[in-house]
Amino acid sequence: MELEFLGTGAGSPAKFRNVTGIALKLLEERNSIWLFDCGEGTQHQILRTNIRPRKIDKIFITHLHGDHVFGLPGFLSSRSFQGGDQMGPLTIYGPRGIKEFVNCALKISQSKLSYKINFVELDKEGVLYEDDRFVVSFKYLEHRITSVGYRIVEKDYPGELLVAKLQAANIPAGPLYGQLKAGQVVTLDDGRIVDGKDYLGPDKKGRIVTILGDTRQTASISELAQDADVLVHESTFGKGEGKLARSYYHSTSLQAAKVAKNAGVKQLLLTHISARYVGPLVKQLEQEAKSVFANSRVVKDFDVIEVPFPKS
Amino acid sequence: MELEFLGTGAGSPAKFRNVTGIALKLLEERNSIWLFDCGEGTQHQILRTNIRPRKIDKIFITHLHGDHVFGLPGFLSSRSFQGGDQMGPLTIYGPRGIKEFVNCALKISQSKLSYKINFVELDKEGVLYEDDRFVVSFKYLEHRITSVGYRIVEKDYPGELLVAKLQAANIPAGPLYGQLKAGQVVTLDDGRIVDGKDYLGPDKKGRIVTILGDTRQTASISELAQDADVLVHESTFGKGEGKLARSYYHSTSLQAAKVAKNAGVKQLLLTHISARYVGPLVKQLEQEAKSVFANSRVVKDFDVIEVPFPKS
Ligand SMILES: [Zn+2]
Ligand SMILES: [Zn+2]
Repeated sequence: MELEFLGTGAGSPAKFRNVTGIALKLLEERNSIWLFDCGEGTQHQILRTNIRPRKIDKIFITHLHGDHVFGLPGFLSSRSFQGGDQMGPLTIYGPRGIKEFVNCALKISQSKLSYKINFVELDKEGVLYEDDRFVVSFKYLEHRITSVGYRIVEKDYPGELLVAKLQAANIPAGPLYGQLKAGQVVTLDDGRIVDGKDYLGPDKKGRIVTILGDTRQTASISELAQDADVLVHESTFGKGEGKLARSYYHSTSLQAAKVAKNAGVKQLLLTHISARYVGPLVKQLEQEAKSVFANSRVVKDFDVIEVPFPKS
Repeated sequence: MELEFLGTGAGSPAKFRNVTGIALKLLEERNSIWLFDCGEGTQHQILRTNIRPRKIDKIFITHLHGDHVFGLPGFLSSRSFQGGDQMGPLTIYGPRGIKEFVNCALKISQSKLSYKINFVELDKEGVLYEDDRFVVSFKYLEHRITSVGYRIVEKDYPGELLVAKLQAANIPAGPLYGQLKAGQVVTLDDGRIVDGKDYLGPDKKGRIVTILGDTRQTASISELAQDADVLVHESTFGKGEGKLARSYYHSTSLQAAKVAKNAGVKQLLLTHISARYVGPLVKQLEQEAKSVFANSRVVKDFDVIEVPFPKS
């Protein structure tokens, strides 16, 4: 599980920061990639990575401002050129209006895609998607336009099979170890009934990644971020600009760091960086956050960040 | 008058060719820039040039395929961020549907621009715009979707004032020379009536630039290209692929060169180059055209081409 930042700027593309696009690479976990937001030029950024568009099977949009969605029609069209007929469907989650925007662009340009798009427009907060490995939920934030944060929770992995304990109980090795490892109840040749769960170590905790849209400070942020292994938080403004941030519905580096600290986050990644912050000013933004929450980092385009398993 | 190529690729952005965007720089002529097509990432390309978005006061769209229009909403939004309240209005010309596309994108993203957009949707072929320096007309081409070519004609400049001839006629120098230079009729102090036109050299021919949308070969191309100083023609396919080009509604290098030759064009610029053409294959494409029309060139992103005055 890795995060790859395709765009880390705010509002308009700048020379060294594109507008927002974040890839959550779940190649080992589910052989696919999820994209969070798709500002203009996201497909151009992808060209410079090893991401194959066909692997992207879900796109989560945080809000409908142009710097987060104007790259969608182009990305969707180019994805269609690549995979031929075997291209899998794609699901787009986002605030109401996302479907109209995409369909309008595809209709006017007479783009016929080689795959199906499913739209899931956000309504009631809560679980949006669940499979055997992941649960994705969302909550509303506070921005000038409807904006949400996504919380991606990886389900816990079952513990290791305790082979020494099995041997001590004279349970013979064999295919039946596989069933026990899966937590099943098994009847031995000698008639004993053995519950796999009694021979498994503690569960291995899954990871939690929280990715927020543009927002000013509001209670739902902490709820989304609680105990996250990685929190991606906007930092459009710097430490001393709390009032400005509030009136523009954005956040400061310091506010993000406080959230991370109070919510028990493991790592804070600051993004949506204004073009005003270049060179040493970026380091300063990072230092402001670090003064409150040590494991803070201002990301830049093409940064790849491994999401580690929590230490148990 | 210069052409600056912001994107010279076909269909999807490639690593070294963006999708279509062409700036016609009329800085000396009218202190503005006209943009022809605006594929995704055009505003990113502009960031790497000396073009200031506020100078762009007209955008001409050749057709509504995504690789020619998906950069519009982002360009329009970013232009709005830059100039404050003094930003002048902008006119967008294009096939029917362009207004719906732009308005839909701006509406959904709740983008409020700091300037007014006028839309002119194309209907009857012919003159689209005229001022004291330029006439722009268009004709329909042949593509899978409505596609047009634009012909930009610079009006002739009046000839030089023939000072020696004035002196020979004993017409005294003074402010009145300015009126004569402007071609006016003037009464001298001695009662003589003098027509400025009798004292002007031959008109200086204005320039003609023809910029085509994607098209297969059709009669209107030559009409648009007749005597053009520069013809910008697509070359999605190579010499041997005439049949393929026809069935995909595109053109070959050789077809473009034949048009240039037969229409008395001075310079041919080939663009909309497929990503299949890289390295020596690009030179080959150019050679194919040159074998028929010597002054041919395959352009690449960021090429700037001066449009010279025709030799009289
Ligand atoms: Zn934003
Ligand atoms: Zn095209």
